[in-house]
Amino acid sequence: MKRTCLVLMLVICSYSSFAQTTDTARYVKTPTGYLMVLRQGDDVFKEIEKFAVAEKIPSANLTGMGFVNARFGFFDFKTKEYKPKDFKNVEMASMTGSIAWQKELPSLHIHGVVTDASFKAAGGHLLSATVSTGSLEITIIVHDKKLERKMEEPLGANVLQLQ
Amino acid sequence: MKRTCLVLMLVICSYSSFAQTTDTARYVKTPTGYLMVLRQGDDVFKEIEKFAVAEKIPSANLTGMGFVNARFGFFDFKTKEYKPKDFKNVEMASMTGSIAWQKELPSLHIHGVVTDASFKAAGGHLLSATVSTGSLEITIIVHDKKLERKMEEPLGANVLQLQ
Amino acid sequence: MKRTCLVLMLVICSYSSFAQTTDTARYVKTPTGYLMVLRQGDDVFKEIEKFAVAEKIPSANLTGMGFVNARFGFFDFKTKEYKPKDFKNVEMASMTGSIAWQKELPSLHIHGVVTDASFKAAGGHLLSATVSTGSLEITIIVHDKKLERKMEEPLGANVLQLQ
Repeated sequence: MKRTCLVLMLVICSYSSFAQTTDTARYVKTPTGYLMVLRQGDDVFKEIEKFAVAEKIPSANLTGMGFVNARFGFFDFKTKEYKPKDFKNVEMASMTGSIAWQKELPSLHIHGVVTDASFKAAGGHLLSATVSTGSLEITIIVHDKKLERKMEEPLGANVLQLQ
Repeated sequence: MKRTCLVLMLVICSYSSFAQTTDTARYVKTPTGYLMVLRQGDDVFKEIEKFAVAEKIPSANLTGMGFVNARFGFFDFKTKEYKPKDFKNVEMASMTGSIAWQKELPSLHIHGVVTDASFKAAGGHLLSATVSTGSLEITIIVHDKKLERKMEEPLGANVLQLQ
Repeated sequence: MKRTCLVLMLVICSYSSFAQTTDTARYVKTPTGYLMVLRQGDDVFKEIEKFAVAEKIPSANLTGMGFVNARFGFFDFKTKEYKPKDFKNVEMASMTGSIAWQKELPSLHIHGVVTDASFKAAGGHLLSATVSTGSLEITIIVHDKKLERKMEEPLGANVLQLQ
């Protein structure tokens, strides 16, 4: 009985400390789009994708800053794959990206710059990110045209289509 | 008399070279918010705070670039303090932040990336900054909801509240 | 004849691979301004200048990200010249700037942060850039006042004038 209580308490503590309750709004409407605030443990790409689907965003751009765990990738044109590198508990000094659609799913393209206790900056193409001990504030400017991203060959890159 | 004149001339020269006269507008209204241009010697946080109070900004986000002296801080979760580092006469390659309120005073949260003659980038959480030999251009997108920042425990971080 | 055909084919291939056809729209109107997508080989400054003239942009700010060849310059106050450095095939992790006018020509002021396979960030004042193997997405927020940039002395810097 004691052990069950302890486990239960730990679960409750972990939940309240490390995750956002479902009651907390993650975004509000603004005159030019939306303001999003993500909290510790939130998956950045998943939350923006959920938002894009829920609010039927035709297309948008975003800028942001906060404190994150980030995985960046640099594209290797020989292997046609992103070579990844992880950065844990870093300031997101700058985040710039766009929301579009690809095969009826939200398609995000986000770049970022992160810094650690040395203040040295690193970054590039963001593959994934979660919010670390802090928050991530994202300003979303919504456009009115539904835009698609398309793989362009022989370039081998996903490009935002304007028409 | 000669000495007094010389001192007076030096004071006048210093004033006109290093400070902005009060006659120069520091910002203009735009369809989405405001455009701010700060000049040599301007205190970045003080000017944005004065602007937020004068224009009764409910909340806003900002992006900017220019030439500055910047102090960044990396948060030490053990000491609960920011470990600071100064960067003098650097390009502000990117500045991203938000304006909200805390206890009836403007509450700024600004991140930046700076570069020097080596072109290497550094940055993170901006503690303070003044404009150096040049200017700082800031685009402010104003939101319509008055938003507060609140210290969230046990996180130990100031988080922008959406409700 | 064979040789001529081969040369012609190579020219056509090169054209379709490395340059953007004039039929492809480089920007679309949005509620807050324009969204621009540049492609491999596009000259970033020239395309934004052409856009500013064609759309009679009074003034604007921009943010962007993509994959570029970039030349940055750090201003030497002794020689009054920018000391340049080139970065080839790099992610533009962040691009922030403004469009104004000077002597009836578009006047751009753009800063950027780039990263390579090492993920280390560099950047500053952008002197020129072309799009590399990928694209460059630029969000332009248009203002309603025609603004001029003016060389301010003794500062020796071009400053955006608000009045």
